[in-house]
Order: sequence, then structure tokens, then C-alpha cells
Amino acid sequence: MKESADTPVDAAPATAPTRRPTVPALEEMIGVTLPVLDHGFVRLVDYMGDDQAIVQAARVSYGRGTRRVREDRGLIRYLLRHQHTTPFEMCEIKVHMKLPIFVARQVIRTRLASVNEYSGRYSVLDREFYLPDPAVLGAQSAANRQGRGDVVSPKRAAHVLDLLKGDAERAYAHYEDMLGGSAEALQTGEERGEEHEGIARELARINLPVSFYTQWYWKIDLHNLLRFIALRADPHAQYEIRVYAEALATLTRLWVPDVYEAFVDYRLEAAGLSRMELEALRSLLRGEQPDLAALGLSAREQAEFKQRFGLI
Amino acid sequence: MKESADTPVDAAPATAPTRRPTVPALEEMIGVTLPVLDHGFVRLVDYMGDDQAIVQAARVSYGRGTRRVREDRGLIRYLLRHQHTTPFEMCEIKVHMKLPIFVARQVIRTRLASVNEYSGRYSVLDREFYLPDPAVLGAQSAANRQGRGDVVSPKRAAHVLDLLKGDAERAYAHYEDMLGGSAEALQTGEERGEEHEGIARELARINLPVSFYTQWYWKIDLHNLLRFIALRADPHAQYEIRVYAEALATLTRLWVPDVYEAFVDYRLEAAGLSRMELEALRSLLRGEQPDLAALGLSAREQAEFKQRFGLI
Amino acid sequence: MKESADTPVDAAPATAPTRRPTVPALEEMIGVTLPVLDHGFVRLVDYMGDDQAIVQAARVSYGRGTRRVREDRGLIRYLLRHQHTTPFEMCEIKVHMKLPIFVARQVIRTRLASVNEYSGRYSVLDREFYLPDPAVLGAQSAANRQGRGDVVSPKRAAHVLDLLKGDAERAYAHYEDMLGGSAEALQTGEERGEEHEGIARELARINLPVSFYTQWYWKIDLHNLLRFIALRADPHAQYEIRVYAEALATLTRLWVPDVYEAFVDYRLEAAGLSRMELEALRSLLRGEQPDLAALGLSAREQAEFKQRFGLI
Amino acid sequence: MKESADTPVDAAPATAPTRRPTVPALEEMIGVTLPVLDHGFVRLVDYMGDDQAIVQAARVSYGRGTRRVREDRGLIRYLLRHQHTTPFEMCEIKVHMKLPIFVARQVIRTRLASVNEYSGRYSVLDREFYLPDPAVLGAQSAANRQGRGDVVSPKRAAHVLDLLKGDAERAYAHYEDMLGGSAEALQTGEERGEEHEGIARELARINLPVSFYTQWYWKIDLHNLLRFIALRADPHAQYEIRVYAEALATLTRLWVPDVYEAFVDYRLEAAGLSRMELEALRSLLRGEQPDLAALGLSAREQAEFKQRFGLI
Repeated sequence: MKESADTPVDAAPATAPTRRPTVPALEEMIGVTLPVLDHGFVRLVDYMGDDQAIVQAARVSYGRGTRRVREDRGLIRYLLRHQHTTPFEMCEIKVHMKLPIFVARQVIRTRLASVNEYSGRYSVLDREFYLPDPAVLGAQSAANRQGRGDVVSPKRAAHVLDLLKGDAERAYAHYEDMLGGSAEALQTGEERGEEHEGIARELARINLPVSFYTQWYWKIDLHNLLRFIALRADPHAQYEIRVYAEALATLTRLWVPDVYEAFVDYRLEAAGLSRMELEALRSLLRGEQPDLAALGLSAREQAEFKQRFGLI
Repeated sequence: MKESADTPVDAAPATAPTRRPTVPALEEMIGVTLPVLDHGFVRLVDYMGDDQAIVQAARVSYGRGTRRVREDRGLIRYLLRHQHTTPFEMCEIKVHMKLPIFVARQVIRTRLASVNEYSGRYSVLDREFYLPDPAVLGAQSAANRQGRGDVVSPKRAAHVLDLLKGDAERAYAHYEDMLGGSAEALQTGEERGEEHEGIARELARINLPVSFYTQWYWKIDLHNLLRFIALRADPHAQYEIRVYAEALATLTRLWVPDVYEAFVDYRLEAAGLSRMELEALRSLLRGEQPDLAALGLSAREQAEFKQRFGLI
Repeated sequence: MKESADTPVDAAPATAPTRRPTVPALEEMIGVTLPVLDHGFVRLVDYMGDDQAIVQAARVSYGRGTRRVREDRGLIRYLLRHQHTTPFEMCEIKVHMKLPIFVARQVIRTRLASVNEYSGRYSVLDREFYLPDPAVLGAQSAANRQGRGDVVSPKRAAHVLDLLKGDAERAYAHYEDMLGGSAEALQTGEERGEEHEGIARELARINLPVSFYTQWYWKIDLHNLLRFIALRADPHAQYEIRVYAEALATLTRLWVPDVYEAFVDYRLEAAGLSRMELEALRSLLRGEQPDLAALGLSAREQAEFKQRFGLI
Repeated sequence: MKESADTPVDAAPATAPTRRPTVPALEEMIGVTLPVLDHGFVRLVDYMGDDQAIVQAARVSYGRGTRRVREDRGLIRYLLRHQHTTPFEMCEIKVHMKLPIFVARQVIRTRLASVNEYSGRYSVLDREFYLPDPAVLGAQSAANRQGRGDVVSPKRAAHVLDLLKGDAERAYAHYEDMLGGSAEALQTGEERGEEHEGIARELARINLPVSFYTQWYWKIDLHNLLRFIALRADPHAQYEIRVYAEALATLTRLWVPDVYEAFVDYRLEAAGLSRMELEALRSLLRGEQPDLAALGLSAREQAEFKQRFGLI
């Protein structure tokens, strides 16, 4: 029989009555597996709070002073616009994720999440590794020092995938060899012969590439989740973390629709403009032709400014 | 009509079906006000997770390695004993509290809680201040540099309470005077005459003593809640914060009974023994009479060691 | 003789040789007391790192990829503009502050600072309280629900100051009465007669208004310090916390001049523009007259937008 | 010429005068590389504070109440014993570390450190991977579900090292192939011919095993450093992280000798005893033979208890 640590089966847990705030649209997603990449997933486990919980916390804070003057949606938009972030900490979400190690290493930098990760010291890792789709197999970007440029040629892509697949399969076979038996046999606790003296799991695993999948329970409050989505759903983020951020964004939109709408307006599709850019805009609106370099914008800033406002 | 920011009325919110883990005993407490001190309270607003959620997170972490070998209660005890604290972060609780400012100043030092506090900049503060019961009106302790000693004489207690009450009432009356009208009138937005020119709320409030009540929404994960209770339900903690820690302990016991039992055994009624104390114990168990001072115990440590183990 | 907990005397500590990064301009400030409000201060105790330390940390992170392409100042500006915040965590500053309790209550919400505060449970508090200068004694703002409006009349100001001063002095006298003797006598440990039975310090202090001064050591990394300054040096922050933020800004400008310059350009004098505002700007730059309400800007947002860009 | 991101050369930086607290013994270590494992290191970059800084922060906190009664060393021991942890946050240390990815993944779980890690998205990773010494090549422990047991046979060890070395070298050669040229050529920016179309660095790196080295700047306060050392210098920690914890312990002992001594006495060589163990000890000291199982100790707890106190 399968453990909870394995790929979960979509099964709606039984319902029970509760006096807590509930979000019917999100309840539908509990236990549902959102597939991500070739073997990964995001699966909703639990949540706490809703749009109304944010309003409630803000009202205790700003007290009677805010009574009557703002309806709930307006208050949420006001809070998000002015970065009054503490009410958004009042909601929590918990998901079960399966993700490649190199993605996990980026996600973990969000220090205010709580994490319980599958341990390769205790348990045998699964024979699952990430193999990029040829459609996302880009060259190193020339413009952006960290991103991807155009997709490489089909011939080159085939060569790369051969290398990745061959090395990952060989690494796993050697992992099993070092453990002294097949992963399946070890997990069921079958006896190994003497000729199969295994080394410790914590050592054997060091042979596996960072393309292998790990999994964890990940809990985060809404404020930090929005920061995560803003950072990782960004076009500059690596594609493989972006798809996880997008799955989380899907859940967030169902969970707190008013918050998500405000988040799009004031964060995702908003922009921070520097002192120099604000000056340039004021000058343009007066009908002048400001000298962007003289205002202090770097070459890159000038290009981005022009593109943002369609100036050529 | 009353706002949520006012003293709440005990009213069981309506129930809705949920697929999330629920704790029936804790559901009963949602919306129930636990009175603390003369005007304070702790009221459960929401929670996330249960004993089983901790087991589930630990199992993904320690994986198949822990399968079959430990039943749930045993795993919880093992985790708490060995300070594997991350699974306990997977549960959250949210309460509405009313508490004196000087207590709030201590509670806020628990930096990993989320807080939305009533703001004296926006809203007029309530005419409620803490007046100690004569039964807890102790003298400065001679033994303990920060604690309380014996209760003072009834005559002295009456004098102290007169001072506290008189000053608090006068401070509030002057607070209203500075605001330019009665708190009630201000809250209902009644017009003030010109002769009652009010100063800003953020300034008028500086006249109020730290015995006045404030209130907030306070959300914390179970790991940090247990640390809070261990620190603040301790006999060395100030009485007025201890009673809040005890109300929270009551909720915790209902919420996660297995965790709470382990917490008592491995934390609340456990003890950390120093290298020197361990040496002294080994010596005693060999039937020797160790020289505690020579082992490096300070005078205070010697006294505590003897008391702990009933050595005179 | 004075303790370190008392108001410090300006005395340049002796110098010693170090291999750590040093900032000569900031070394001059070590031990210097910057006065704030009537009895408060900010005094630099220690610091770690400089502009160059940020560059160094960023270079290990972005590695050879950033070599040659950016000089140091440009890299700092790039990091701050793109909110690559972790290199700014590599610098730390530690100050000794004296500040009114109601200000301390706001400062402490910056949860990522480390604090050691003077304890009213152990020690007798000083007879020092904040009394606003009549020049900052404003009425409650009508426009802004939490701010101050115009200064009140001289007659009204005099009345308010009388109330604040009288109540604070009475509260302190009663505090001493409850302690069973003058603060000076208690601090020098003089014997009290039996008729002066004192109650515990932790209780007597509850009579003191939040205008009384406390003090603490406060340590924070540069990333969180910049967030603090951005939030608290803002015109919407209460005047009494703003002056502390400004003293810290003075130190920061001496400490990391390149960072501070970038901070002004990309944070302090920058602005976050919403999706709707960006649309409005694009429309204006095309020579159109956008309907701001139809774009989704609230009345308040419309007013702020027009003011920011000088559109009447 | 070498970048700061490469293995550093031991070079004592020039000295400058400072008014900050300095620790001469630690100054000697600035820029010195402590080798760890086969290619790793810990190198001190900067520090802030000393033993005296902890005393100073504690004194402001506990104020005049602690004056005269405790000398500095005694106060430090008292603070550490009673887990008054905030004064220890007043000191910071910053190191440059080179460590295998699988170790980095454990270290990063210390969420209150600040980290800037070498990025495989921007830069080409070095051809350095960890190969265990045969002397530490243990079998999976039977007793401990995550540890290592006895060292495997020389023949088996040779086989394992052949697998690890062969796979790592092949993975790196393929990494270079995917990048479209040798790492050296890429780093110096040499042109690649068309036949060597490289894929993005962020993708090519997914082929490298977690035995490869990464590096980072790591900054942490003393309180969290002590927690890290207690957790990771423990015999139950994986050998490969323990050696890093030990290098950090070496620096800590030089830095804050009074704190380190207290840390050994009250933490490293101390023990937390459960309610049940305390009861058993009291019973033993009364000359009785307590039934450990009846008191509630699990089989494992009974064994550990007996071993700790030499009972059999």
C-alpha cells in the first residue's frame, strides 16, 4: 500500500462541519493534484482564513476609525496598495509539493515558509528526474546574463536530452548499486546477500543530480506567498520555478479573489518608478523632451523606460 | 451596534462543511471568550491542523524510514523530545486578545507571531485599565531580583489601589479633554464646539498609563506557541502575562492533546541539566558525596540542584 | 558613577587595529550621542560591513557572470533597483536608543531587529517623560484618519501641556510612593523604614504613562534598516518616530554612501504605480485624456495621481 | 587573475584603526582559510561584538538591578543557563564557505542566517566534487535509522568511489558539452564555433550531482550560531556537515571564549531530562529501584537513560 509520501491519488477527503471561515471554491481543490513539469505536482492540503479574515484583522487594527468609510473590497485594495502587510499574514496555506532539487533550492530561500522535506538520509529516493521538454530548451541569453534565449536546434536538443537522461539513469543505477540492492527491495525491507554490502543512504544519495525530484510539505502565510509569487512568477525567474509559482497563483485566486485582484493591480502589473523616471515623466507630460541620460538613467534603464511607456 | 473590535459576545458562528482536518473539541471554543484579568480575554478565532497534521508532515520528512515502526503518539513524543521542531510549525492558531499594554509589550517580543493591534492613532481607546486584585499585590522579592514576594498589608494594598485607580481615571478624563470631547461622542462622530479644539489622537494617548487595555489579533504556529507557553507560563514570569499563557495552554490542550501531553513531559516538567549537574548525579548514583562547588556549580546552582532532587 | 544604562557621555572609545572593513566617517560617530526629542537619543555602538561588503557578497552570488560589466556603484544601484535584497543583509549596525514607550511600541514591530530593552521589572525607571513642543501639537487631521492637522491655538496648547506634565509628574511621584521610597534611594539600595512597604517594581510601573522614556540596544541589518527608514521617515509616520528614523538615516548616509544614494533614488523618492496608473500614463503620453475613474482609480487615487504628476 | 569567488589565498588584509570592540585572537583569523573535506573551506570575513558586548546588552536590559552583583563571566553563564538569548543576538560573524550542495541544503535550513550563494544561472560551476575518504564510508546503520554504521570493506569502498568519481567526472564533461565549450573558455569569454551551440547555464547545471561544491557568504548572529553548532556538531548529524560545524566552533571559541565555555557547560555537554527521567533519578537517589517502563520511558529512552548515568 502507498504512503502519503508517494504521489498522491486524487481523493476528496471526507467533510466535517466547522465554525471556521471556509472558501467553498478552495474546498473543491483539497486533495486535488495540480501536475507541474514531468513528474512534479502541487496539492492543496489545508488553508486558514479568507478575504474576510484580512478585513477583520485590519478592522481591529485601524479600529472604529475605518468603520463605515470603506467597504471590504476597498479596504483590501487600500491595504495592499499601501503595503500594510500584517493583515495578510493572518491567512495560511499548506501544500504538498513534488519538485526537482534545483527548484527546491530556490524555493527554500523564502525563509518565512515552514517546510518538511523528504529525507534522503532516512529513505530511498524515487527514480524520478526532470527532463526538460525540447520546447523550453533554450540557449544562454545574450541580453540577460542569467536567462534563456532562443530554443536550440532539434538536433542539439536531442543530444542534450540524451546526455541528461543517460547520466540520470546511470546515476540512479549506481545509487542502487551503492545501497546494495534495488530501491524497491530496500523499501520493502528484503534481505540483501553479503555480496551486496550497502553504504549509508546519506552517502549514496550524493551521486544523484539536482534534476532528481524531492518532495515536501510547505506552509506559508498569504503575505509571504504573494511575495513569492511576485518574485517567482516573474518572466525573469527560471521557467522551472515559474510553473510552480503559477500553480500556487491558481490556488490563491480561488482562495482570496479580492486579494488576488488587488495583487494584480498593485503588484504584478504595477511598476516601481525611480526618482529619475518620475522626473522624466513629469517633463514628458509638460510636453518637453527630457534627456534621460542627464537625469541619471543608465543605458538599461533608459531602454526599459522607453519600452514601458511605448516611447518608440 | 457593536464592532468586532469591542468586547465580543459569545456567539457560536454558523457551521459549514470542510474537507480540512477538524478538532471537534476546539470547534466548541470558536467564538467563546475566556476571561483573563479584570477586563481582558482570549477568544479563539481560527485554527489549522491537528495532532495528525504533525505526524503527516514528519512522515513526508522521515519518509518510509519511519513507516510501521512508530505509531502516531510515539512519533509525536519522539519529535518533541529530540527537538525536531519543524513539523510543529505546520499547525496555526489565531486568537483575539484584550490585554494591558504592559503585558502586550512582553507578548510582542515573540517575534514569530503575526499581530494586528488596535491603533490609538486611528481610534479612541477604551476607558478600561488593569487594577490588580489585592491578592496578587506583592512586594518586590528579595530573593529574586525581578519577582514578587509576599502580599503587602491590606492597608498598604488599599493605598496602592487608590493611587492606581485615581491616576488612571484622571489620565482618561484628561485624554478625553485633550481629544475635545467624550470618547462616546467622538466615536459616534458628533460635532464638537469650537471651544473643544481636540489634539490628534496619536498625541493625546501618550497620557495613558501602560495599565490601559489594548487588543489585537494574534496568530502563531504551534512550535512558537509552545515556546511562548514554556516561557510565559513559568513561575518566574510576571503573573499578569502568566494568566494569558494559561488561557492559551487551555486551548492548546484541547487542540492537540498528544502534543500537549508530550510538551508537559519533555518541556514543561522537564529540566536542562548542565555538564556539572550531570557529573554530580553520576557521582551521587555511585554512592559518593560530590563537592558541588568543586564541580563548578555556583551557590545558586547548588541550591537549585539540591532542591530539585530533594537532597535536603 | 554612571552606568551604561544612563544617558551616555560623549566619549570616543580608544582605537585598536582591525583587519575588518572600516568606515572612517562612521568611526567618528561611535560613542557620539544624537539627541532626539526632549530626552531621547540615538548613539552608535558598533557596525559591520560597508558599501564594498555588499558588492563582495553580490559578486560571490552572481559570480564571474558580473565580472567586468559593472563597477561597484552601478552594481549597488542595480541590486537595490531590482530588490535583490540579500546582499544588504550582510551589513549590521547597533545603536543605543532612548525613546518614549509609545514610540518603542512602534519600533518593535520591525521584527527582524534584535533588541535588549531596559526592564521595569528589575530596575527603577527614570523620571523622564516626553512633552511635545507646542510647534508639533497638532489637531486630529480631517483628511488623513490617523495624522495631525494644523497646530492648535497657543491657549489650547498650554492647557494640553499642563495636563500632560501634571499627570506624568503625579504618576511618577505615585510610582515612587508605591515603590516605598525615592528612585534615587532605591537605586543606591538605602534601607526603607517599615512604614514604606514597597510593592514589586513590575506592578508599580503600570502607573506610568506611555510618554515615559525607556531605552534599549537595537541591532539590525542594512536591508531591514532601509525598510524601517522608508516606512518610518515617511511623512505619514507619526512625528515622534520620524525623528528617530531621521537620526538613523543620518548614520546610514555616513556608513554606506553609495547604498544611501541608491536608496533615495529607487525607494525614498520613487513611487509604485498601479496597473491603472501605468495605463493612464501611457494614454496621457499618447496625448489622450484618459478617464481615470473608468480605468478603476478610486477618488483618492485620482487625486494622488494628479498631484504626483502636476496635472492641476 | 583570480576572482573573490574562487578559492581564496590566505592573505592578511591591511589593518586600520577602529573604535569598535576588537578580539585580537580572532583578528588573526581574518582571511585565513580553514580547510574542510576535500575541497571545502570556512574563511572568516568579518565579525561584530565580543564577550563584553553581550554583557553590555544584558546590563541595559536588566539595568541597575544587576549592577555589582555579578561579574561579567558569571552574567554570561547565567544568561546562557536561563536561555536569556537576546543578548547573544548582539554579536555577528560572517564567513565565506565552500561546501558540497548536499551539505548546503542542510545548512540553509538555519533560516535566521543571511546567505549569498554562487549562482549556477549566472556563472559556470567549478569542476570540484566531494569524494568521501574511505575511512568515513560507512554502511547504513541498523540501530539508527539515518546514521552510518561500520566502514565497508576496502573492496566495496573502492567500488563505491569508482562509481562516484566516474559519474561526477562524466556529469561535468557533459555539463561542459551542453554549455558548448570548456568551462575555462566560457569564463574567459572565448568565442564558440557554431557547432557548439550551448544551452542556458540554468539548464545545463541540472546534470550535476549534489556532491558538487558550491560556495557562499554566510552571516549569522551568535545566538543562532550556537544553535547551529549544537544541532550540527552533534554525533547524530551527518559527518559532512559536522566538520563544517566544528570549523565554526573553532572560530567561536577564539571569538567569545566566555560564551563558548558556558555553551559547553550548559548546552553541548548538558542534557534535557524529561519529567519521567527526573522522577526516576529522584527515586534512585532515595535508594529505590524505579520501574522505568512503568514511569513511562520508552525502550529507547530506558536504554539512553541507563547509558547516560552508567546504570549497567
